[in-house]
Amino acid sequence: MPEPDRNPAGLVWDATRPGEVEIALPERMDAGLVFIGRIRTPFATRSECPRRGRPDGPVCRIEIDPPFRAGLKGIEGHHRLEVLYFMHQARRDLIVQTRHRDGMTCGTFALRSPVRPNPIATSIVELIGIEEGALLVRGLDCVDGTPLIDLKPDHGPA
Amino acid sequence: MPEPDRNPAGLVWDATRPGEVEIALPERMDAGLVFIGRIRTPFATRSECPRRGRPDGPVCRIEIDPPFRAGLKGIEGHHRLEVLYFMHQARRDLIVQTRHRDGMTCGTFALRSPVRPNPIATSIVELIGIEEGALLVRGLDCVDGTPLIDLKPDHGPA
Repeated sequence: MPEPDRNPAGLVWDATRPGEVEIALPERMDAGLVFIGRIRTPFATRSECPRRGRPDGPVCRIEIDPPFRAGLKGIEGHHRLEVLYFMHQARRDLIVQTRHRDGMTCGTFALRSPVRPNPIATSIVELIGIEEGALLVRGLDCVDGTPLIDLKPDHGPA
Repeated sequence: MPEPDRNPAGLVWDATRPGEVEIALPERMDAGLVFIGRIRTPFATRSECPRRGRPDGPVCRIEIDPPFRAGLKGIEGHHRLEVLYFMHQARRDLIVQTRHRDGMTCGTFALRSPVRPNPIATSIVELIGIEEGALLVRGLDCVDGTPLIDLKPDHGPA
């Protein structure tokens, strides 16, 4: 049997720790997501991912699937983009979880942990290059192959 | 027959305009969302919604469904929250669309329009009050009854 994947603190990923609270997620799904591409990063496993993307982090490549590429028209006018992606390796059923910083337990909505009922991450990235059907950016924190959900200009005046 | 709903510019909501590009969305859904609550706002229809939430906008109420309320533990320590919600009235099949500001056509990913393959909006809000199973915030722009997907502390250092 292979060794279970462990996080940088030596704990088994996906284990429930003391004080954490699991919930039964509803059977229903209320809406569906279509993955529009994927994100290529130098982080092969969750253990290699930084806790938060940094503007001086490594260049990552956001690949957009062909049906959606027309949606990139005009994106070169935006230096900062918001990227939404699906944390496909994260469990969804912890509603209270251990905070990395100090080991306190905290509600999921008071944390930016990938573990949440809808494991959608948002990051603000700097756009540094555009290729055929792909964007080069800095500021991501996710594992290589993470499914892409959306791209938008960063928050700002309408 | 009732008059079709029109936007503030007098155009019928959901009509495709010249230069806009529709795509066939994939039949498949790659992941599912669970709605965790809903957002109560003073905006009864899309025509009443502001184009972008403002920090001095009206107080809105974010209602969290009972199974998810334990996830609010510790949220009072965060003044600014990121809210993710599902733009359930928006069509998902326009990949090039008309920009409100000047009528130019623009790729969907170069706009923050609600119309997009995965119609998930993100807003940064100010937390101004906490009630039983609900948060009072300023900074939202969505129609009353919008489904809630997620709450997180605002972007910031890890």
